[in-house]
Amino acid sequence: MSNAASNAPNNVEYDAIFVGGGASGRFGSCFLQGLGKKPLIVEMDHLGGECHKCRCAFENFVADQAAMADCLRLYSGKSWYPEINLKGISHSRAMKTYRDVGSRAFADAMEFQTVKQLGVAVAWGQAKIIDKNTVEVNGVKYKGKNMVIATGSRPMMPGIKGDKLENVWTYRDHPNMTWDPKKIVLVGGGKIGMGKASMFAPFGIDVTVLEKYTCMPKWDADVREFVFRNMKMRGIKIHEGVEVKEILGKTKVEGVKAIVDGKEQIFECDAVMITSGLTPNSEIAKPLGVEIGRGNEIVVNDKMETSVPGVYAVGDVAGPPFFMACARKEGMTAAKNICGENAVMDYELIPDHTYISPLEATMIGLTETEARAKYKNVICIKVPVGERPPEVKPEEYQEGYAGNALPVCGRMHTLNLLYFGANMNGMLKAVVNADTREYVGFHHVGDGAKVAFQYLGYLMKKGWKVDDMAQLNEVFLNAEHFIQLSRLIAGKKKLTDFK
Amino acid sequence: MSNAASNAPNNVEYDAIFVGGGASGRFGSCFLQGLGKKPLIVEMDHLGGECHKCRCAFENFVADQAAMADCLRLYSGKSWYPEINLKGISHSRAMKTYRDVGSRAFADAMEFQTVKQLGVAVAWGQAKIIDKNTVEVNGVKYKGKNMVIATGSRPMMPGIKGDKLENVWTYRDHPNMTWDPKKIVLVGGGKIGMGKASMFAPFGIDVTVLEKYTCMPKWDADVREFVFRNMKMRGIKIHEGVEVKEILGKTKVEGVKAIVDGKEQIFECDAVMITSGLTPNSEIAKPLGVEIGRGNEIVVNDKMETSVPGVYAVGDVAGPPFFMACARKEGMTAAKNICGENAVMDYELIPDHTYISPLEATMIGLTETEARAKYKNVICIKVPVGERPPEVKPEEYQEGYAGNALPVCGRMHTLNLLYFGANMNGMLKAVVNADTREYVGFHHVGDGAKVAFQYLGYLMKKGWKVDDMAQLNEVFLNAEHFIQLSRLIAGKKKLTDFK
Repeated sequence: MSNAASNAPNNVEYDAIFVGGGASGRFGSCFLQGLGKKPLIVEMDHLGGECHKCRCAFENFVADQAAMADCLRLYSGKSWYPEINLKGISHSRAMKTYRDVGSRAFADAMEFQTVKQLGVAVAWGQAKIIDKNTVEVNGVKYKGKNMVIATGSRPMMPGIKGDKLENVWTYRDHPNMTWDPKKIVLVGGGKIGMGKASMFAPFGIDVTVLEKYTCMPKWDADVREFVFRNMKMRGIKIHEGVEVKEILGKTKVEGVKAIVDGKEQIFECDAVMITSGLTPNSEIAKPLGVEIGRGNEIVVNDKMETSVPGVYAVGDVAGPPFFMACARKEGMTAAKNICGENAVMDYELIPDHTYISPLEATMIGLTETEARAKYKNVICIKVPVGERPPEVKPEEYQEGYAGNALPVCGRMHTLNLLYFGANMNGMLKAVVNADTREYVGFHHVGDGAKVAFQYLGYLMKKGWKVDDMAQLNEVFLNAEHFIQLSRLIAGKKKLTDFK
Repeated sequence: MSNAASNAPNNVEYDAIFVGGGASGRFGSCFLQGLGKKPLIVEMDHLGGECHKCRCAFENFVADQAAMADCLRLYSGKSWYPEINLKGISHSRAMKTYRDVGSRAFADAMEFQTVKQLGVAVAWGQAKIIDKNTVEVNGVKYKGKNMVIATGSRPMMPGIKGDKLENVWTYRDHPNMTWDPKKIVLVGGGKIGMGKASMFAPFGIDVTVLEKYTCMPKWDADVREFVFRNMKMRGIKIHEGVEVKEILGKTKVEGVKAIVDGKEQIFECDAVMITSGLTPNSEIAKPLGVEIGRGNEIVVNDKMETSVPGVYAVGDVAGPPFFMACARKEGMTAAKNICGENAVMDYELIPDHTYISPLEATMIGLTETEARAKYKNVICIKVPVGERPPEVKPEEYQEGYAGNALPVCGRMHTLNLLYFGANMNGMLKAVVNADTREYVGFHHVGDGAKVAFQYLGYLMKKGWKVDDMAQLNEVFLNAEHFIQLSRLIAGKKKLTDFK
C-alpha cells in the first residue's frame, strides 16, 4: 500500500466516494474535483490500479524488453552489429527491474498527479461498504452523497482441473516471476495470450498457445495471417480449436493435457499461464443490492448508473470492453452525471491494440470482411503487396519484390533492410467505403503507429474521407503511411484498390 | 538511374510535364493521373528524389542505428542485458547496409507505386527544357500543355574557406561514407545538424557542433534545454554564436578555425559536415524566364503558379519550408489548378520533427514564449515536473521525484527505468489558451509520438479544445500522454497549469 498519510477528513460529506482508485476511479474523481465538487477515493493499494502493476505500463515495458531481445538475436553479427551472446538472458531478471523501479515509479507518479497536483482526497485502506452513502475504512466512516464502484477486475479462471498447481499463473503473476520456465503453455489466444507469447519467446522460453476457438478473432484476416506467420517464425507454437482438459503435475506444473484435432495430446511444460479473460470484482457492491450481470459485472446504463439510485459503477467492474480509455471515460461520465449533467458513454470506434514483439498491432473500425458484408463497394489501401521473395538472405536485396519495401519506422526499418522481403517488419491496411469515400477501418502492424488510431477514431465518427486524409501534413518518415498512400489515389473520382 | 524502360510515348500531348519525380513531382503527377489527366514525369535518377537517397527514409534508418547503438552502450550488463562490446562498431558499415539494400528497396518501391500501380508515364533521363511546352530527354521531345518544375534542392554551401578539401561533406555524402572519422565538426546547428550529431556520436565518433547563432531556434525553450542537456550527456559538444573562419588542411580536413567568445579557436577533426540549409535547384527553369527569388527559389503564388502562365513550381525548388508534406501537397495543388480548380496551399500548422537519437523531437504550433506573447492567459500541461534526483544510479528508484516518472514508451520506457529520474527518456508539453481552452502548441521529445502531430495540426485548425481531447479514446500506454493529461484537468472551469 502507499505509505502516504490519508488526506481525507471524515467530518465532511463528500459529493462522491470512489471505491477504488484505478483507471476509472482516479480519472473520475479528478474530473469531479475539477468540476468543483468534493470526491473521495478509497484505495487499499496504490492509485492507478493494475496498470502499473501488471497491465498497460507493465506490458509496455515487457514488450520492449522482448523487442530488444528479439532484435539483438536477429541482428547479432550483421551489418555494424557486434556479436551478441544471448545465452543465459533471463526474463525474470527483467521482471526484477520492473519490480524494483517501474512499479514504484508509476505508482508514485499517479499518486503525485492525483494527490499533490490535483488535491484529491484519498483514504488508504480496504473499503467496507456500509450503505450507499457510507464507506468504512480502517474503522473510520466516510459519508458521501453518491457512490462510484470502481473496483476493477481479476483474471478469469475457466475452472480447469489442476489449475491450483504451483506455477499455474495469470497475468497478475507475470511481474512476480523469479525464475525462467523452460517451456510455458498459454491457455487462451486472445490479445492477452498472444501478447504474452511474444514477450516470453525472445528470452529463449519455449512457448505454446492453446486456444479453444480462434486466436485474435476480432482482427482482420490479413493482420491475423501476418501475426501468426510472424510468431511461428519466432518459434511460437499456436494451436486453435483445442480443448484443454487438465493441467498435469504432482505439486508443480508438468504438462497440459488437451484435445487437439480430436486426439488427446500432452504438452510438457514447467509453467502455465491462464489468459482467458477478466472477471469483474463486483462482490464488494452486493450489499448495496445492485444488479449483477451474468459475467459478474455490475449492470449499468449508458450514464454509468447502477440499478440503485446514487450508485454508479465504472471501469472493468461494469463489464466489457475492459479498455483503459473506456474505464477513464466512464469515470468522467459518472462525474458529470453526479453534477447533474446528462452525460452518456459512447463505445463506438474504440481502437484496439496488442503487442506482438518486436511489433505491435492496432486496429479501429471494421475488418475488410465486415466492411464487405456491410457496404456494396469496398476498396483497400494495403502494403505490402505482391509476392514475397522465396528465400531471404540477410543484408541482400532482391529485385522484383518492390511491393515488400514498406512499411517501416524505427527499429522495424532495420528489420526490413536486414531481411528484405521477409515481411517481418509490419503491414498496413485501410478499408474504405468507395461510394462515400469514407474510411471504415484501419489496421496496422509495426512500430510507432498506434497513437494515430486515437485520432482516427474521432475523425471516422465525423465521416473522414480519403480526400480529407490527403490534405493532412504528414511527419515523414512515419510508421502508418495512411496519409501518403491515401494521397496517391485521392485524385480518382472512382476509387479502386491500391494494393 | 532506374533501369526501367521508358513507358512514355512522345506522340501525345501531355496535360503536364513534371520535371523531376521527387516528393512533389511524384505526388503531383499521381494526383493528376487520378484526376483523369495525362501527366509525364521526367526523371534522371530514381523516383522519390532525395528521400530514400539521403534524407527522410535514410535518416530514419540512421537514427534507428544510432538509437540502438546508444541503448546498447547504456544497457550493456544492466538488468537482463548481456555485456555488449561496442568497440570497433562502425558507422560507415551501417551506411553500406543502407546503400546495399535501403536505397534500392525504396527506389524500387516508389517506382512500383508510381509506374506499376498507378500507371504514370516516366521518361528517364536528364530533362532539357526547350520552352514551356517542350522538354527534351535523350534527344526525344515531349510536349505538354503545362509544365511543373519539381527539381528539388541541394545543400547550401556558405562559402567557407577550405570547403573544397577532401572530407568536407554535406548531408548528400552521408550515405556514401566508407570510413569512420575520429572527430567530426558539424557546421550548423539547425535540425539537420543536430540530427546528424545525434547519429554520429553513438558510434564513438567525437562530435562538435558549431552554430553561428542559436541551435534549433524555432523550438520551445524546454525542448531546447532537454535536447542540449541530453546531447551533452551523450558527449556531443555544442557551441553557439560561433563564426567559422576556415576549414584547415593540406588536401584533407585537419581542423576548423572559428571565433568562439571573441577568441580564435582550432577544432581538430578529420571530417567536416556542412549542414547550413538548402538551396533550390532553380537553374534548369531559367530559360523559361520564371522569376527567381533571393534564395534561388522559383517564385510562386499560393496556387504554385510561377510568373510564367502554364508553368508551376513545387517542392523544394519553390523555396521553404522544405518539408516533405508541403512538397507533396504543392504537387497536388498544382495538379488541381492544372485541372482548372482554384486550389491554394495552406502552410498553417505544419508539424516539425527532428531526430535526436535515441529520441525524436516533434512540435506543432506555438512555443510557450510565443503563446504568452500572443494570448493573455496561457497554461501548460507538462511532464516531467519538479526536481531531478541529484545523483542517478542505474536500476535504482529514488523516492520523492515522482514528477520524473513519465513520459515513456517503447525503448524509452527502458531508459526511464534503468536511469530513473535522469530525464533521459523525453518530455512533453501542451500549450493552451486558457480563455478559449484551445491548444495553441504541442511539443514532444520521446519515441512513438510523432504520428499524432499529423492529426493534431488538423484538429488545431478546427479549434481543438482541452474538452475535445478529453473525449478521445487513447491507446494506452501511449507515448504522448496528451489525451490522459488533458482529461485530468478538463473538468476545471478555469484552467490552470498542470506541471
